[in-house]
Amino acid sequence: MTDPSASTPTLALAIGDPCGISPELTAGLLADPSLTSVARIIVIGDRRVLAMGAKHAGVSLDLPIATSRAEACASSQTVLWDQANLDPGEVTLGRISERGGASALANFRAAIDFARYGTVDGVCFTPFNKAAMRLAHPAYEDEVVFLTEELDFTGMASEFNVLDGVWNARVTSHVPLSAVAGLITKDLILENLILTHDALLAAGFAEPRIAVAALNPHAGDGGNFGREEIDVIAPAVEEAKARGIGCAGPYPSDTVFLRARDGQFDAVLTMYHDQGQIAMKLMGFDKGVTLLAGFGFPVCTPAHGTAYEIAGKGVANLGAARNAIRLAARMAATARGATRKDEALNAIS
Amino acid sequence: MTDPSASTPTLALAIGDPCGISPELTAGLLADPSLTSVARIIVIGDRRVLAMGAKHAGVSLDLPIATSRAEACASSQTVLWDQANLDPGEVTLGRISERGGASALANFRAAIDFARYGTVDGVCFTPFNKAAMRLAHPAYEDEVVFLTEELDFTGMASEFNVLDGVWNARVTSHVPLSAVAGLITKDLILENLILTHDALLAAGFAEPRIAVAALNPHAGDGGNFGREEIDVIAPAVEEAKARGIGCAGPYPSDTVFLRARDGQFDAVLTMYHDQGQIAMKLMGFDKGVTLLAGFGFPVCTPAHGTAYEIAGKGVANLGAARNAIRLAARMAATARGATRKDEALNAIS
Repeated sequence: MTDPSASTPTLALAIGDPCGISPELTAGLLADPSLTSVARIIVIGDRRVLAMGAKHAGVSLDLPIATSRAEACASSQTVLWDQANLDPGEVTLGRISERGGASALANFRAAIDFARYGTVDGVCFTPFNKAAMRLAHPAYEDEVVFLTEELDFTGMASEFNVLDGVWNARVTSHVPLSAVAGLITKDLILENLILTHDALLAAGFAEPRIAVAALNPHAGDGGNFGREEIDVIAPAVEEAKARGIGCAGPYPSDTVFLRARDGQFDAVLTMYHDQGQIAMKLMGFDKGVTLLAGFGFPVCTPAHGTAYEIAGKGVANLGAARNAIRLAARMAATARGATRKDEALNAIS
Repeated sequence: MTDPSASTPTLALAIGDPCGISPELTAGLLADPSLTSVARIIVIGDRRVLAMGAKHAGVSLDLPIATSRAEACASSQTVLWDQANLDPGEVTLGRISERGGASALANFRAAIDFARYGTVDGVCFTPFNKAAMRLAHPAYEDEVVFLTEELDFTGMASEFNVLDGVWNARVTSHVPLSAVAGLITKDLILENLILTHDALLAAGFAEPRIAVAALNPHAGDGGNFGREEIDVIAPAVEEAKARGIGCAGPYPSDTVFLRARDGQFDAVLTMYHDQGQIAMKLMGFDKGVTLLAGFGFPVCTPAHGTAYEIAGKGVANLGAARNAIRLAARMAATARGATRKDEALNAIS
């Protein structure tokens, strides 16, 4: 178990796909003292892959190495748990490989295990290559599905995109556009509002302000271009408000992100994938963080991909990866604060 | 008829809603010598409304005034055709009014008449207030529908949004999102590609480059999240290419505007309203121009609205309105060049 009285939380950091920029990003993160001060990190991956990353990043790492789960847990400082699962010579930079996917998947699984048993307060990973993951594990759909399966999770979890103080969550995701309207229900929107509210609270927002995007152009124009705003979305917003969730809408989706960017809202709940992704990517979301929330611990990763085309060149930008660590650390610290408060209350009662 | 040998084209400029910033924008445009040099303008509206606008804008206008269509046509310089249709005292700044809507509608109708009979090469208008238009004319839906009815037009016309060299056209517009997938057909996409190509040519693009947005997330991910890309959009793109139209796609809609913004494409054809509007508004489309093309003459207006909240304060930004005049003038000049070329060819043959 992590020590709730410790001043900093513990995060597991899984090394992602070894054929892209993930090794050098991981090394860059570990060489950044501003990060190692916000969290104790258990790095999970092969020491040879990390050494390659350090070479590419031009940093030297002086990291204790654990060769077993027990050793990794026992360390009070940032440590590499060597998985000894990939010799970098077995893969080629810039090329998708099953071996690379298998190692990333094994690292991720070990990180999830640490989190499920409370060894760490949160999970981060440097980018995966989905195609490589699928070569290693054909049933691999995405991180949310994998986590759900690994954890035998039956609750409600969701993916958030976070950029410069604007959060984006979505009610539907990887489904045909033609199916979206039929999938939008009052209950599903309400569940997503609760999840978004809770995730914002967990990230330290005292009074989260969530904007809900409309489904139809001009928010349906009073029912002229669709009735989902009237029949489904507005009732969900009203019920959420009645439950004390700070939310408003539905707002036309072509202006709601302008308002969020201007600071009027902390998060935008969109009805479908591209509604949010078009906006977030234009606002520079590749510099942002993808957060998976609802699993009981935060899972954070940079929003960008493996960038095979620049792998090994030492030019990968650390910004989004740093933000991923910081967000996970902040959410983990907030959860610790809440735990300490609960314990204090228990001690009093 | 306009004189094709004249060095500058003639535009009709209808004064829009009198209760917002349209009067001051109109006055500001007319006081800008950089605009009156690219086009001869026939301003259509009430002289008292324009005088009010000049006062608000803090400009003095020395404009010949025509009191009849014949006088307006006879003038070889920029001229106001006084419609004597609204005493500004009859309306209140910042308040929707039927009288205001009726005057804007009458001005627009007169401008369209000028264009249909060849008196002008293009039409511009300062912003309308749709609610006011509807008070005056309950059947008023939007400018495209009104033009179609006024002109007994049976061809294909479309609305374009233009911002900093990025054009956006859409295959469907003011329909429920649930209806979009069913409305997307190969023929409709092809028609829109031809229309977009022609409009770009008319605006002086020698070799237009059009990106076609996908309908589904991740462009359908090879059919996993919808098949419209495979069954409908790609075949339309292929047929358009075979007809010599410079187009490509379908591209995921969450990155296609990034590529257009980077200069890889001149235009993006989107499948539905918000797909383009989310992107264009985030890129600052309120500074952009709305172009209605396909009617045989360009119709341009600033993309922003009547801004009732700042009406009369003299702070309205002229940028988008200037761009509207410039785009209409450029398209009109291109059409004139084409006409002169046709005439030269006819003279030779």
